[in-house]
Amino acid sequence: MALTRLDCTKCDRTYAPGVVLNLCTACNAPLFARYDLERAARTLRPEALATRERSMWRYHEVMPVEDPAQWLTLGEGWTPLLPTPRLGARMGMKRVWVKDESGNPTGSFKARGLSAAVTMAKVLGAKAVCLPSAGNAGSALGAYAARGGLEAHVFVPKDIASLFLMETRAYGAHVETVDGLITDAGRICAGLAKEHGWYECATLKEPYRVEGKKTMGYELAEQLGWTLPDVILYPTGGGTGLIGMWKAFEEMETMGLIGSKRPRMVAVQAEGCAPIVKAHAEGKPDAPMWPGATTHAHGLRVPKALGDFLILRAVKESGGTAVAVTEAEIIQGVKDISAAEGLFVAPEGGACVAALRKLQAAGQVTPDESVVVFNTGTGFKYVENMAPLW
Amino acid sequence: MALTRLDCTKCDRTYAPGVVLNLCTACNAPLFARYDLERAARTLRPEALATRERSMWRYHEVMPVEDPAQWLTLGEGWTPLLPTPRLGARMGMKRVWVKDESGNPTGSFKARGLSAAVTMAKVLGAKAVCLPSAGNAGSALGAYAARGGLEAHVFVPKDIASLFLMETRAYGAHVETVDGLITDAGRICAGLAKEHGWYECATLKEPYRVEGKKTMGYELAEQLGWTLPDVILYPTGGGTGLIGMWKAFEEMETMGLIGSKRPRMVAVQAEGCAPIVKAHAEGKPDAPMWPGATTHAHGLRVPKALGDFLILRAVKESGGTAVAVTEAEIIQGVKDISAAEGLFVAPEGGACVAALRKLQAAGQVTPDESVVVFNTGTGFKYVENMAPLW
Ligand SMILES: Cc1ncc(COP(=O)(O)O)c(C=O)c1O
Ligand SMILES: Cc1ncc(COP(=O)(O)O)c(C=O)c1O
Ligand SMILES: [Zn+2]
Ligand SMILES: [Zn+2]
Repeated sequence: MALTRLDCTKCDRTYAPGVVLNLCTACNAPLFARYDLERAARTLRPEALATRERSMWRYHEVMPVEDPAQWLTLGEGWTPLLPTPRLGARMGMKRVWVKDESGNPTGSFKARGLSAAVTMAKVLGAKAVCLPSAGNAGSALGAYAARGGLEAHVFVPKDIASLFLMETRAYGAHVETVDGLITDAGRICAGLAKEHGWYECATLKEPYRVEGKKTMGYELAEQLGWTLPDVILYPTGGGTGLIGMWKAFEEMETMGLIGSKRPRMVAVQAEGCAPIVKAHAEGKPDAPMWPGATTHAHGLRVPKALGDFLILRAVKESGGTAVAVTEAEIIQGVKDISAAEGLFVAPEGGACVAALRKLQAAGQVTPDESVVVFNTGTGFKYVENMAPLW
Repeated sequence: MALTRLDCTKCDRTYAPGVVLNLCTACNAPLFARYDLERAARTLRPEALATRERSMWRYHEVMPVEDPAQWLTLGEGWTPLLPTPRLGARMGMKRVWVKDESGNPTGSFKARGLSAAVTMAKVLGAKAVCLPSAGNAGSALGAYAARGGLEAHVFVPKDIASLFLMETRAYGAHVETVDGLITDAGRICAGLAKEHGWYECATLKEPYRVEGKKTMGYELAEQLGWTLPDVILYPTGGGTGLIGMWKAFEEMETMGLIGSKRPRMVAVQAEGCAPIVKAHAEGKPDAPMWPGATTHAHGLRVPKALGDFLILRAVKESGGTAVAVTEAEIIQGVKDISAAEGLFVAPEGGACVAALRKLQAAGQVTPDESVVVFNTGTGFKYVENMAPLW
């Protein structure tokens, strides 16, 4: 196995793998899985990849579990990277792609993180898993727990769309609705996890979800012939995908798969909940709790992210930025990409379309630059959220 | 190009490709695309396929358009074939797979047929496309028409779930609701198509949708290492997928990719609309209009299928059967596969799960036989339909 240890992302502690770990016990920061990349680099080669399975597990040398028999998989990942010339033309851009995560199991990119995390939970002997969620993470947890025969507990804000309750409960998960936001749900979940000994899968509090999410970075590079775009727009709640991709780029460079050039990372948020945008504008290294968070793009309604300093660092180091969009702009983004390209995206995807339009208008991207917009989920799960604004 | 001609499926007429064609002008039966399979066999080899694109277009030698620049694609096809041991165990079966079509663009396998048909419509010079639909085909038509810059007209029963209207209209398609069933919508659509010169994409009335759908047969074989399962369960409305797979098996045998063994094809319908089940039981070669058709699995609510004789012939020749399930059994099927495997399937998929249980109970499949169950779409689009029965 290439997984060698876990490093704290803030202090210099390291941990041996093979046991259940959450945050750094010294400083409460997230842990990152580290691999023997020299060993991994010997087999993780473009030619070898060309014939591998059509899921994120194709990158097994840099995943926490290498043995296919242990993977809890529903075919997550290896999603299409679609050239979207009509959408680009509407904004005066010539090279826009959409990384379309809507076809993942459970309808969002959360499947990647939870496939990895629930796989590890089972490998480490857990019988029950839990997390707080805006909806998609909870349903993904439920699905992979069902697949693995584990018990699942999900805590969601009580204004969640009813579809998520029906779906997640269909997987056999226990779902509790909480009067508050995802941060409140997180507190309740953490307390019960401790009480009952559940394996906690809250994002970045658990070290392997980010390993699943980072595969988006590997796929981008592979799909672009081992190059990276000039700009990536990513809808940022907890920011795990952005952090994961940034980690992936570093791993890939170490293995000689790509060079040192990095895309400008753009964190996209909603005006009603934009802690990262505010902190970035103020040049701060981390982002305080955003009071009164509100947006119908529930995945973006994260008032305080555990990995705020990691998001802000990646955005800054990459020369990127952070952009907030309004509720109306989000809906318009969904409509624009639906009509231009036949993609009925989640509002989080619509937010990135809207943000690209803003960057273009402000001259922060030029017409010839290559841009990848993330659509992180299907619009089908958000009809109830979007309908009043449609 | 390997496409050489179109043959009538009933009489001995053949047609040259390259022009707009619908049914046989002599006998009103569907037309089948025919290819130079000797030429196709030279490059359509297992080794060559291993490195091809992750979409149904990987089989381009046996598709009506070979030039990638002309494909209207959103990444349709090459869906996972998932081993589902927990689901199998619940029914005393040891080797059950689910071919999960839910991750397709627009959330169903209809994407395959419409990617092929709208691509051909554009190649043949059409400016507008149309079809009658239970929901999924219409939204797929809208998506690919948007992708190709074509005008789309969709005709649906007026009791369709509101999600389909929002989605299909988001793609810019014109949607008309019709007081009646898909057959009534088909009549209205056909009249307007004639009047306005629209390219008609009604299933099997248009020769290329089945070419997209047949790729499910190619994928099954490729994913099973160029073998086929003992039994295939397919939710049958118009039956295009079943007919398409049957055609694919024949093409593959001619090209030497598989042998002469065929799976037993099982057409699954709802008790409220089971024309194929009735005709099969009575040993008839075709299936009369089913009066008062009703089921919440709207894709199965097809009282009269243009390709009835082709479905019945494949079922019979294969030694298969046709099974009807109740509304309650369909919902139970959705719940069973959700809880056992983490797959929140469309009711059409649930119907196949229910049908497998029935076949097993009746001794029509044995525990060691390999079985593929089709889940043709995502459950997310059916929450409104399923909720009252849940
Ligand atoms: C569709 C969708 N997009 C984006 C996000 C935010 O993801 P992240 O936590 O990686 O920032 C979520 C989280 O719930 C989501 O469901
Ligand atoms: C999800 C789903 N399954 C099955 C069907 C029936 O497909 P076919 O016409 O190929 O029999 C449909 C048709 O609308 C559908 O939408
Ligand atoms: Zn630390
Ligand atoms: Zn004829």
